[in-house]
Amino acid sequence: MNKETLIEVHNRVKPYIHKTPVLTSELINEMVGAQVYFKCENFQKMGAFKMRGAANAILSLSNEERSKGVVTHSSGNFAQALSLAAKKMGVKAYIVMPKNAPQVKKNAVKTYQGEIIECDSNPIAREEMAAEVQKETGATFIHPSNDDAVIYGQGTAAMELLEAYPDLDYIFSPVGGGGLIAGTALAAKYFSNHCKVIGGEPKNADDAYRSLISGKIEVNDQVNTIADGLRTFLGDRNFPIIKKYVHQIIRVEEDEIVEAMKFIWERMKIIIEPSSAVAFAALLKNKSEFKNKNIGVILSGGNVDVENLPF
Amino acid sequence: MNKETLIEVHNRVKPYIHKTPVLTSELINEMVGAQVYFKCENFQKMGAFKMRGAANAILSLSNEERSKGVVTHSSGNFAQALSLAAKKMGVKAYIVMPKNAPQVKKNAVKTYQGEIIECDSNPIAREEMAAEVQKETGATFIHPSNDDAVIYGQGTAAMELLEAYPDLDYIFSPVGGGGLIAGTALAAKYFSNHCKVIGGEPKNADDAYRSLISGKIEVNDQVNTIADGLRTFLGDRNFPIIKKYVHQIIRVEEDEIVEAMKFIWERMKIIIEPSSAVAFAALLKNKSEFKNKNIGVILSGGNVDVENLPF
Repeated sequence: MNKETLIEVHNRVKPYIHKTPVLTSELINEMVGAQVYFKCENFQKMGAFKMRGAANAILSLSNEERSKGVVTHSSGNFAQALSLAAKKMGVKAYIVMPKNAPQVKKNAVKTYQGEIIECDSNPIAREEMAAEVQKETGATFIHPSNDDAVIYGQGTAAMELLEAYPDLDYIFSPVGGGGLIAGTALAAKYFSNHCKVIGGEPKNADDAYRSLISGKIEVNDQVNTIADGLRTFLGDRNFPIIKKYVHQIIRVEEDEIVEAMKFIWERMKIIIEPSSAVAFAALLKNKSEFKNKNIGVILSGGNVDVENLPF
Repeated sequence: MNKETLIEVHNRVKPYIHKTPVLTSELINEMVGAQVYFKCENFQKMGAFKMRGAANAILSLSNEERSKGVVTHSSGNFAQALSLAAKKMGVKAYIVMPKNAPQVKKNAVKTYQGEIIECDSNPIAREEMAAEVQKETGATFIHPSNDDAVIYGQGTAAMELLEAYPDLDYIFSPVGGGGLIAGTALAAKYFSNHCKVIGGEPKNADDAYRSLISGKIEVNDQVNTIADGLRTFLGDRNFPIIKKYVHQIIRVEEDEIVEAMKFIWERMKIIIEPSSAVAFAALLKNKSEFKNKNIGVILSGGNVDVENLPF
């Protein structure tokens, strides 16, 4: 892994992604006491940064592999991202989803022509089903976060941010499955000589926080958090990167997540999902430590059911 | 009124406003069958285009007038806009508001240091109170929409849009008090040789539509619309401009407004208020007439109570 690879990845995925805007707010700068630059992946195609990693994962396959399709298990943004990226590249996407996944999420995948295969709602059932699809179709399995091509793809968001604002002292990213923060950490390492990467994580799903303490991948006994994109845990591809290059993980309470989300909605007039708000909540909670710094915050996505809000 | 004046106005208000971004959405283009360019005044300072007109109105005063302050009657975005513009210029702002105005609106004005003067909730009471404030303080009355300086200020939004996209065939604007659409019509006249301006208006407050038919200013017997910014009626300064230069007014139903608003929220991940959605609803309703055209839509503001949504 090196800087040149990340540049190549960026060039390769460019036709399939938006170069998302970076927004600022005077009011938020005043409130935080720092210069905050929001990288708006909520404006990304299909509404989240996941499009970057999904596009790169498919582009990394051989023509023969592509002809047999790709398969993943996800009921969230990666399901939509892989479906859309595959559609744009003329590749078949199989999406393993729990039977009880919300209809709105199933519909989103169908919009992008992903083929849904239902399974029972537990981690073993979904892995077995994904393996079965692989066996039957020859499709390549692509993990939503624990995959080098996915990690590199996700890193292009922070790369764009640092190209536009090379003097950032910190970048805040949410931590879920670890793909985004690992990619962000690599981008910071390659494109800055001093920018530190900080993770925001829900206290109620603080596996990454605990993993950094114990030095091995911890899991969550329960994941009672509104940040539904962050209920997953780390993997053997991204954890070593996180362990080596992530400066700190800050945990936030559920009410802090909702407050940060509402604050962004009301003040910036943009829609972000709860998982996105976690990184900003972590900054808000510890703002006294970041006075007068230049801070990037990755707003990871904007896919939220507007008829069912937490405020 | 001429092109040079509008350019001067723009230069004058620039330090007090954002040059708001223009956003597009492939999905919306496909759905409408045209190229749609959204001018995002929801990202304007204080959350609405009104900042432009308010800033220009105060900047048009003499130093002596400024020293005595400004007064308006509004419980909506103009109250906030005049307060903020006045604050930034070191001018006192008196805001006449009905006693029963929502606390959230009063608080917004207080945030910008406007001084609220309460009155009974009817048009006569508020005009009397504004006159009283004028008499007592010497403050200059500034009407939210029926004022040349305000109209010119509002026109700078469409001017920026046409500078960026000179080939627009149409610009859609909501119609409320008439300041925005009159300014937009002047900008189209000065900065394009073919761009037509179309108003979107709630069927339940269709005074402008009826005024264009009768040739005189009509009022609404009732204003039972969710588009709270559009419950006002036209005035003698803006109506002649609208009559002369606005191509058409399209009326929309309440459910069409809510649907258009939700659509923008979900697809573009930005927050717009119901009044903003009216212009886009008018386009959606009549999309077959605008096939393959280049269309600007002014998203006028994003001030909405996220705890109290119509969906």
